[in-house]
Amino acid sequence: MKKTIGIDMDGVLADIEMHFINWYEREHGVEVDRSAMLGVLEPDGFPDKTAVGRYVHTPGFFRTIPVMPGAVEAVKKLMENYEVYIVSAAMEFPQCLSEKREWLQEHFPFISWRNMIFCGDKRVVVTDYLIDDHCKNLDFCKGKAIMYTAAHNVNHSHHQRVDNWNDVLAFLAAEEVPA
Amino acid sequence: MKKTIGIDMDGVLADIEMHFINWYEREHGVEVDRSAMLGVLEPDGFPDKTAVGRYVHTPGFFRTIPVMPGAVEAVKKLMENYEVYIVSAAMEFPQCLSEKREWLQEHFPFISWRNMIFCGDKRVVVTDYLIDDHCKNLDFCKGKAIMYTAAHNVNHSHHQRVDNWNDVLAFLAAEEVPA
Repeated sequence: MKKTIGIDMDGVLADIEMHFINWYEREHGVEVDRSAMLGVLEPDGFPDKTAVGRYVHTPGFFRTIPVMPGAVEAVKKLMENYEVYIVSAAMEFPQCLSEKREWLQEHFPFISWRNMIFCGDKRVVVTDYLIDDHCKNLDFCKGKAIMYTAAHNVNHSHHQRVDNWNDVLAFLAAEEVPA
Repeated sequence: MKKTIGIDMDGVLADIEMHFINWYEREHGVEVDRSAMLGVLEPDGFPDKTAVGRYVHTPGFFRTIPVMPGAVEAVKKLMENYEVYIVSAAMEFPQCLSEKREWLQEHFPFISWRNMIFCGDKRVVVTDYLIDDHCKNLDFCKGKAIMYTAAHNVNHSHHQRVDNWNDVLAFLAAEEVPA
């Protein structure tokens, strides 16, 4: 039986950081440098600290996030050897449920609805690997945690880190090598 | 730490059987007797076998399902001793995602969004108990399977069966008694 991988959406499949920066620039005319976002929670990375909270409640926000570079090709590749599940915390913002479902249909049409999970807390979703950018998910996962680098998580070092989708493929390829 | 219970929506929290019968009567003027639905898949329980397939794709269908008798009180009671997760297969019919989320908010407002899971295949959702009406879910669950009686499942006997929410509470109370 194939091993299972849980893959987060925001910050992993979807480049939500870039989307925040783009929306902020559109609203405020200011291009925030990613260096200002390092090590702080997302709302605190912007001069107007109410912006992120407003964006995630705005219809259309989640539907229009750009795809993380390399994600489509990497997920296709992983699906050759793993059972891939999309595991996204989508319950907090109810309007995003249909937007995230449509987003997946547009950008990852090769992933079956059977392999999509929208949840709140991820701790009862059990996969052999979990690729996520948040400690609140990775700290409680029962499989092997893989932290996808995001500005907000750069100061956490207690999980295996990957910086991009090439890193994900390389890490998992190395896992396959018999000891 | 509290034990976890996964609870299905359709056929368990939500009386989808009654809803099919009501919608069928409204459309066809025929009240189908539940005895005609015993042991057959839901679409085959009605003279017009296309009806169920149409209803589940109709906006508003999932939003208006009646609550299963006793479910609200029983879930409240269970939450005193268990971590309760709602685990619903909602991905196949994308329009039902927001409808199911609103339905839970209306009828079970005391359940946190953190404890809601909408998925396709339930096999990577792992709870100590799973209350569900479908073998396709119960057969693969890693915890203890509890089959909630529905017309379509009456001929399956390989899972612990409960006929109503009082049965659920009685079964779980018995589980608590030290051997």
